[in-house]
Amino acid sequence: MKKSFRRVFTPIIGILLALCLTFISLAMPASEAKAKNVILLIGDGMGFGQMTAARIYKGAPLCMDEFSCTGFVSTYPHDPVEKWVTDSAAAGTAIATGVKTYNAAISVDGKKRPVKTILEYAQEHGKATGLVTTTRITHATPAVFAAHNPNRDAEDEIAADILAHNVTVLLGGGSRHFLPTNLKGKRTDGLNLVEKAKSMGYRYVETAAEMAAVSSGKLLGLFKASHMSYEIDRSATEPSLAQMTQKALELLDDDPDGFFLMVEGGRIDHACHAHDGAAAVRDTLAFDEAVRVAFTYALQNRDTLAIVTADHETGGFSVGGYGQYCFNPEILRTAKASFEDVIAPQLNEKNFQELLARYYGITDLTPEEIAAVRLGFEKKVGAIALAEVVSRRALLGWTSSAHTGNDVPIMAYGPFAEFFTGRLDNTEIFEGMMAAFGFR
Amino acid sequence: MKKSFRRVFTPIIGILLALCLTFISLAMPASEAKAKNVILLIGDGMGFGQMTAARIYKGAPLCMDEFSCTGFVSTYPHDPVEKWVTDSAAAGTAIATGVKTYNAAISVDGKKRPVKTILEYAQEHGKATGLVTTTRITHATPAVFAAHNPNRDAEDEIAADILAHNVTVLLGGGSRHFLPTNLKGKRTDGLNLVEKAKSMGYRYVETAAEMAAVSSGKLLGLFKASHMSYEIDRSATEPSLAQMTQKALELLDDDPDGFFLMVEGGRIDHACHAHDGAAAVRDTLAFDEAVRVAFTYALQNRDTLAIVTADHETGGFSVGGYGQYCFNPEILRTAKASFEDVIAPQLNEKNFQELLARYYGITDLTPEEIAAVRLGFEKKVGAIALAEVVSRRALLGWTSSAHTGNDVPIMAYGPFAEFFTGRLDNTEIFEGMMAAFGFR
Repeated sequence: MKKSFRRVFTPIIGILLALCLTFISLAMPASEAKAKNVILLIGDGMGFGQMTAARIYKGAPLCMDEFSCTGFVSTYPHDPVEKWVTDSAAAGTAIATGVKTYNAAISVDGKKRPVKTILEYAQEHGKATGLVTTTRITHATPAVFAAHNPNRDAEDEIAADILAHNVTVLLGGGSRHFLPTNLKGKRTDGLNLVEKAKSMGYRYVETAAEMAAVSSGKLLGLFKASHMSYEIDRSATEPSLAQMTQKALELLDDDPDGFFLMVEGGRIDHACHAHDGAAAVRDTLAFDEAVRVAFTYALQNRDTLAIVTADHETGGFSVGGYGQYCFNPEILRTAKASFEDVIAPQLNEKNFQELLARYYGITDLTPEEIAAVRLGFEKKVGAIALAEVVSRRALLGWTSSAHTGNDVPIMAYGPFAEFFTGRLDNTEIFEGMMAAFGFR
Repeated sequence: MKKSFRRVFTPIIGILLALCLTFISLAMPASEAKAKNVILLIGDGMGFGQMTAARIYKGAPLCMDEFSCTGFVSTYPHDPVEKWVTDSAAAGTAIATGVKTYNAAISVDGKKRPVKTILEYAQEHGKATGLVTTTRITHATPAVFAAHNPNRDAEDEIAADILAHNVTVLLGGGSRHFLPTNLKGKRTDGLNLVEKAKSMGYRYVETAAEMAAVSSGKLLGLFKASHMSYEIDRSATEPSLAQMTQKALELLDDDPDGFFLMVEGGRIDHACHAHDGAAAVRDTLAFDEAVRVAFTYALQNRDTLAIVTADHETGGFSVGGYGQYCFNPEILRTAKASFEDVIAPQLNEKNFQELLARYYGITDLTPEEIAAVRLGFEKKVGAIALAEVVSRRALLGWTSSAHTGNDVPIMAYGPFAEFFTGRLDNTEIFEGMMAAFGFR
């Protein structure tokens, strides 16, 4: 009896123990596992207002709405003058290095000393790296990950620094800072960094088709002399942010040590500076499609942490405004072009009604609206005054042509995603990535 | 050997099994357990901008910053005219009943049919209930939990409906809708609902001291004829929102079946309508102190779910504005009174400089600022024009004197708190509370 009891019971206990252990391992938070890869997606200037408007415009939830680890992030810089409101350089530096600094600093601290970035830590650990953006690749947000400079405007220096960092994949605009003046670039030092990149083993591409043809190795893609086009203006010659993200993941995926990839939807910010609601919403949706690419990759590769956030809010953007309880997204849908890149360059005091008819189908400007635009021209802000006519009709509010200090969203999926919940400071994004990679 | 092995090993297996089971129970998400109590805290009009400004003003994290289950909430109503921007009635109805409706609806649907509220479900299950607010208790947000009316303005009817609901604890302003005209009330039907409440077994109190003396039973506290004072104007005669929350929890805690309590920081919204940044920030901090009381209770009573959210954002509030990269909270710190309740009632075209000196210490108005206020008086918006002088100096931006449709924050702690992460629609707050209570 005792023996048979033991014979029957011992295996049962074994099975029970095995079940318990299995259960424990399943019940353990996924955050215990390290992340082999981190994809950091930054919607430049994307606050909660921009997200809300994009969802309404789309008429369906965003990919960003599908994350369950979510929080909000404080963005203030340590700037002696510009208190509580950051620029993209200081915010980017905080995210890339964990160090608060002054506005305009590219991964240097308050005493202008270089601070090591998450991309540099990833490289030290043998990981592949990538920077993807719709702005110039030398602009503040991409720059902070692979350059150190006391001044964000030194983009020729920043281009050389980024190249010297030997980042695996670089996709964006800004060829003018890689090319000398005799080749339509801005460099006065005569250097041709595109040729230099090729000598370093980079494939160099300038169109979506050329990019699509690359299937391995290091890649430098510079698709415009300055920023890439707003999504609303983009032709198929230029890749979308989602296509660039997809290509970067294809290439980075080859590294057995894993990778760090930063993807920036950089022109949400520009559209909001210009009070161009239609361009802001379209670029937010293009960013969301890039988020979808990253989220899908993270779902298929459980060792990948995807983080989506913003560096700051731009414009004080609100759905509704001007004392009205309403929002008319239909007016934004009629837009055919951006204010900054298409309308403004051809705009003058005489043709604004014609341009508004051509690009927005608006042919019934009221005397008050016409007067407001004329006043804008007097004050040398004709383009923003015209954009505000559209915003008033859409009932889309703005408090500023600059950034605001409002908290911004954060969402995460994958190992350590739970870290990115509650209220974080932007420096904690760096800390979370370091912990997720197991570097701390 | 075998026997002694068994003698030693069997207890070890037992201990291991016990450890495993303990571990499993600890590792099981807390969300499996039902909530006996739910405390729902609503910051009326409190968006991410208001929270950011309150944190900066305080110079330290808010209690709201301590929650780790956080998300953001879409607030749009189903209104035939006012698209995408809700009022407090429609938003409150969505939260209280899970049903989208038109602006001005008090827990009735689009066809004006009553919809059962979370408070009514809680009562059906034998739970105690409470409504605490700084507005009139008959105002939209508290009303939607214990009244049904096609029109939020029918506050005399709403008072009678709330009383008929036999809510255990009612604390706020609005005695004018409980008293007949001959007793300084607004009721033209001659009813004295305060007397009626007493006959129903309520203790009735009108001051903080009277409230403090109550230690059990049903309680009706009406501390002002209309709304309670802004925090910035409050004297110790009126209890703070935190004190009212504490008292409500003391009384509701007595019910062995648990309770549902709604706490509203109702005047954040009013301050933002008036573009009064100082009053908005002070009321947000007073709300945060009430959140602290609820959070502490939930920490000590693990069967309690605390949820903090907003019904909508008011004002399109931004930290920073007017094209400047800065925010000056110091100017808000100098404020001694609210615009709406203290400054506006005595304000005229002649004394605005004197009042601004008295209540803000501002004695150096520029000719442009004086001209802007005079223009405000011409347009019959003198008070808001004066408030905007302060906002411009503080670099605090506004897009509207109404609400906006921007997503608002949500945070939760306790059983089922994980439900309140990611992007939710406001109707899902009702669904989450129903699930947490185990009513679904």
